[in-house]
Amino acid sequence: MAVVGIDGDDTLWHNERVFSMTQERFRSLMAPYVSGDELDGRLLETERHNLALLGYGVKAFTLSMIETAIEVSAGRVPATVIGALVDAGKGMLDHPVELLDGVAETLPVLARRWRLVLVTKGDLFHQESKLARSGLLPHLWRVEIVSEKDPATYRRVLAAAGVRPQDFVMVGDSVRSDIAPVLALGGRAVHVPGWREWALEQAEIGPEDHGRWCTVPSIRDVPAVLDRLSPP
Amino acid sequence: MAVVGIDGDDTLWHNERVFSMTQERFRSLMAPYVSGDELDGRLLETERHNLALLGYGVKAFTLSMIETAIEVSAGRVPATVIGALVDAGKGMLDHPVELLDGVAETLPVLARRWRLVLVTKGDLFHQESKLARSGLLPHLWRVEIVSEKDPATYRRVLAAAGVRPQDFVMVGDSVRSDIAPVLALGGRAVHVPGWREWALEQAEIGPEDHGRWCTVPSIRDVPAVLDRLSPP
Repeated sequence: MAVVGIDGDDTLWHNERVFSMTQERFRSLMAPYVSGDELDGRLLETERHNLALLGYGVKAFTLSMIETAIEVSAGRVPATVIGALVDAGKGMLDHPVELLDGVAETLPVLARRWRLVLVTKGDLFHQESKLARSGLLPHLWRVEIVSEKDPATYRRVLAAAGVRPQDFVMVGDSVRSDIAPVLALGGRAVHVPGWREWALEQAEIGPEDHGRWCTVPSIRDVPAVLDRLSPP
Repeated sequence: MAVVGIDGDDTLWHNERVFSMTQERFRSLMAPYVSGDELDGRLLETERHNLALLGYGVKAFTLSMIETAIEVSAGRVPATVIGALVDAGKGMLDHPVELLDGVAETLPVLARRWRLVLVTKGDLFHQESKLARSGLLPHLWRVEIVSEKDPATYRRVLAAAGVRPQDFVMVGDSVRSDIAPVLALGGRAVHVPGWREWALEQAEIGPEDHGRWCTVPSIRDVPAVLDRLSPP
């Protein structure tokens, strides 16, 4: 039986939407100093620069917002605004887990036919908290919270599960993190675009070659497409 | 053959010392607003309050420092000082990994006789980075980076490794995180006090009952004491 890997953020539950709402608040707090577009660009630069040191997740994002606020205001931003950014970050961590449309109905269907491995990236503590609050844990065979989703990570995840790449199908919203590295190992993948993709997650990939991967509009389409992809 | 679990922070490499150095810098930056002792108390309160939302690690600590700085200065702290706190946090993440005295010589000795499982708590990204830079990975049979070290976590770690509690000995500096939860499961433990213990890690435990745990002054003493503890 094939094993199905499934991504968390923006595949099972909303994530980018929470970041976007916070970034909207950031723009409004920083409006006295800089335009919204300029701020977005500077924040993305800070995040890109901090990635190797801070990694992914809300705490890293909050620190990058604070750093950007200080830089774009040339140190003039008041501490109270920075306090509001800390509060915004905490609000993200405390934000209710909102499942994407179709997930609550489809995950039990998938779990009845395949062994499901959650492969999710980011802050360990926050991912565990989101998973616990999602109510989805009973449908998952294994959980792997990882710091990066590259071929080496997937190789380790598959070895730990005792699954060969040709018996593995990954489902997720990110071509860069969920699709490309699994295809590189010889696995298969189903791309389910999420609400929006973070600029640092964007990537290109070749055509849907050899039927090893495809894009479907909703997680509701995944069971049917797995039937087509599954035979090795 | 018994499996030996080993803690990372302040058992294999220095951690509290890096936090203490940063906290010293925090005190000096905030000296215009508050005494060092008052600041330490307020920071600890903030950390305790934030623990359930932010978890452990440097990014959580940095956000707690920023929050405390804003509070104790009643919002008067300049953004440049907050920028210095962000830099201090990044400096901690970038800080060289310094092994505790005796670790470099003793870990290979342990690895030749027991299968070693690193069980370390905190930020996934930072722990992986420290482990990679420590040079100790070749001596480890398994690596478990966890968000909390309670009996449930150890039960999961032991199940994943296929080890019974009575065949497991945990080595670490924290009575609360490394010793008590393993004893509660029926395992054994060796306490090696570290450089200093964070206030939120302190705990009491009963006497070294039934030879199931003991305290030794250095990791160099661990191989000899494991010989005594090992028989089930």
